[in-house]
Amino acid sequence: MAEILKGKPVADALDEVTAETVRKLKEKGMVPVLAILRVGERSDDVSYERGALKKCKKVGVKVRSVVLPADVEQDKFYQLLDELNNDDSVHGILLLRPLPWQLDNEKARNYLRADKDVDGCTDGSLTGIFVNKKIGFAPCTAQAVMETLKHYGIDVAGKKVAVIGRSLVVGKPLALLLMNANATVTVCHSKTEDVSAITREADIIVSCSGQLESVTAEYVRAGQTVIDVGIGYNDRKQKLCGDVLYEEVEPLVQAITPVPGGIGSVTTSVLVSHVVQAALRK
Amino acid sequence: MAEILKGKPVADALDEVTAETVRKLKEKGMVPVLAILRVGERSDDVSYERGALKKCKKVGVKVRSVVLPADVEQDKFYQLLDELNNDDSVHGILLLRPLPWQLDNEKARNYLRADKDVDGCTDGSLTGIFVNKKIGFAPCTAQAVMETLKHYGIDVAGKKVAVIGRSLVVGKPLALLLMNANATVTVCHSKTEDVSAITREADIIVSCSGQLESVTAEYVRAGQTVIDVGIGYNDRKQKLCGDVLYEEVEPLVQAITPVPGGIGSVTTSVLVSHVVQAALRK
Repeated sequence: MAEILKGKPVADALDEVTAETVRKLKEKGMVPVLAILRVGERSDDVSYERGALKKCKKVGVKVRSVVLPADVEQDKFYQLLDELNNDDSVHGILLLRPLPWQLDNEKARNYLRADKDVDGCTDGSLTGIFVNKKIGFAPCTAQAVMETLKHYGIDVAGKKVAVIGRSLVVGKPLALLLMNANATVTVCHSKTEDVSAITREADIIVSCSGQLESVTAEYVRAGQTVIDVGIGYNDRKQKLCGDVLYEEVEPLVQAITPVPGGIGSVTTSVLVSHVVQAALRK
Repeated sequence: MAEILKGKPVADALDEVTAETVRKLKEKGMVPVLAILRVGERSDDVSYERGALKKCKKVGVKVRSVVLPADVEQDKFYQLLDELNNDDSVHGILLLRPLPWQLDNEKARNYLRADKDVDGCTDGSLTGIFVNKKIGFAPCTAQAVMETLKHYGIDVAGKKVAVIGRSLVVGKPLALLLMNANATVTVCHSKTEDVSAITREADIIVSCSGQLESVTAEYVRAGQTVIDVGIGYNDRKQKLCGDVLYEEVEPLVQAITPVPGGIGSVTTSVLVSHVVQAALRK
C-alpha cells in the first residue's frame, strides 16, 4: 500500500501561509487584488473561476471579476488588458483560456505584464524559470507539483526524476524547476522510445502527458514516488482518471498522488500565493 | 577506433550555405553587418574577435568593430549599445564578455535587442528556445553541437541524450534544443548521483561541464556518440584538453569530437550564419 499524497493538506498549508501574509500586508494598508478576466461563458472557465473566487475569499485576496461577451472585439479586449496591466491596484491577472477564435491566444498569452502573470503563461514567466530569476511566476500546475513534493518532505536534490510530457504549461517548465532544485531530470514524450524503461530507473515519476491511464504497472517499481498531473473523464469507468492506471500502480509504489484530490487541488492555492507574492514584490 | 567528428567539415559546410545566402542578399542590395563590441584588450576577446573577423571576411559579412577603453563609463557604454540596437544597418551584435567590473554583465547581457542577439545571450533568445519560436538566436556553442550532429547524420529524434552541465550558455539551452528535436534528454550536473550510470545508458553524451578530462572510460560503452564541448589547458600534459579523457574514451565509443578541432571550430560559423539569418528575417 502506497502513501497517498493528497492535495488538500498541501493546499491548506499553503493557504495558511498566504492568509498570514495577507494579514500582514493589510496591516500596512495593502490589499492584494487578483483580476480575473473571462471572455464568454465556457463552463470550464466558470468553474475554474468559481474555485479561484472561493480560494481568494478564504485567504483574504480581493477579486476584480471582469467578464466580456464571447464575441468581444479584439480592440476592446486588448484595451481592457492594457487597463489591467497599468492599474497599480491590480497585483495579479488571471486570463481564462482558451479564448474565443477572434482573439489571438498566442498574442493574448504574452500580452500580460510578466510581473502580474500569476498563472505563469507569458514568455517572461517562462524565462524567469529558465534563468532562475524572479521575473514572473511558474505555471500554477508545475509549481503545484513542486509544492506537493516539498510538503511531503520528498527532497528532489540528487534524485532521478522522469517527467512524462513536454508541454509549455507543465512538462518543460516543471523540468526546469526540478533542475533548478538540483534534481537529475529526464523528459520523456511522444517520440521517446521505451518510456517505461526510463521511468523504472527514476526515483520520482511525474506524468503530465494527458494520456489517461497510460502509466501502467510496467512503468514503475517499488520505492518510487508517482505524481499524476493528468485529469480526464473515463467514459467506461464513469469517473475522473489521471495519467496513471491507479489501481494497478498504487499497490506497487511507495507514494502516489490521487486523481481527483491530488495535484489539481493545489493549483488555486498556488495561484493566490502568487498574487500575494506579486503584491509583496512591489 | 571511433569515427572522429571533426569540426572543420561542419564549419565549411555551414560557411558555404552562409556565403551563398550572402551572395543572394547582396544581389538584392543588402549586406549583412555584424557589430563587434569589445571593451578593453583582454587577450581572449581579441583572439575571439580575430576568429570572427576572419570568418566574416570568408563568407562576405561586413564587420563594424567598436572598441571601448577598459575603463569606459557606464553611460557611454549603454549609449553605444543603444546606437547599435537602433541602427537598422546593423543586423547582429556580438558583445564580447565578461565585461570590466564597472559595467553590469547581467544588465548588459540583456540590453541587446533579441533580434540582433546573434550570440544567444539575452533572455529573449533563451525564451525563443524554450517556446520554440524565432525570437533571437540559440547560444552559438549549443547550436554548434546541433549542427555537428546534423552534419554527421546523427539523428537525435527518439534517442537518449545525456547532457552533462546545466549552464545558461550551453547545458540548459542545449537540453531544450535537443528536446525540440525530439530527443529524450537527461541533464546531469554537480548534484547528480552516479553520473556515469546515466551516461552509460545514453545513445549520445554531450559534456559541457567544464570539468576537464572528467568523462572517463567508466562513463561510456560501445556504440555511443560523445560530443565534447569543454576546452582548457592541461598543465601537466602541456596541451589543450576537453571534458573527456580522450585517449581512454576514444577507443571505446563509436564516434567522438576531438579537442581542439571539434565543437569549438564550429561556433564562429554558427555566429555568422546567425548574422545572415538576422538579415534575412528583416
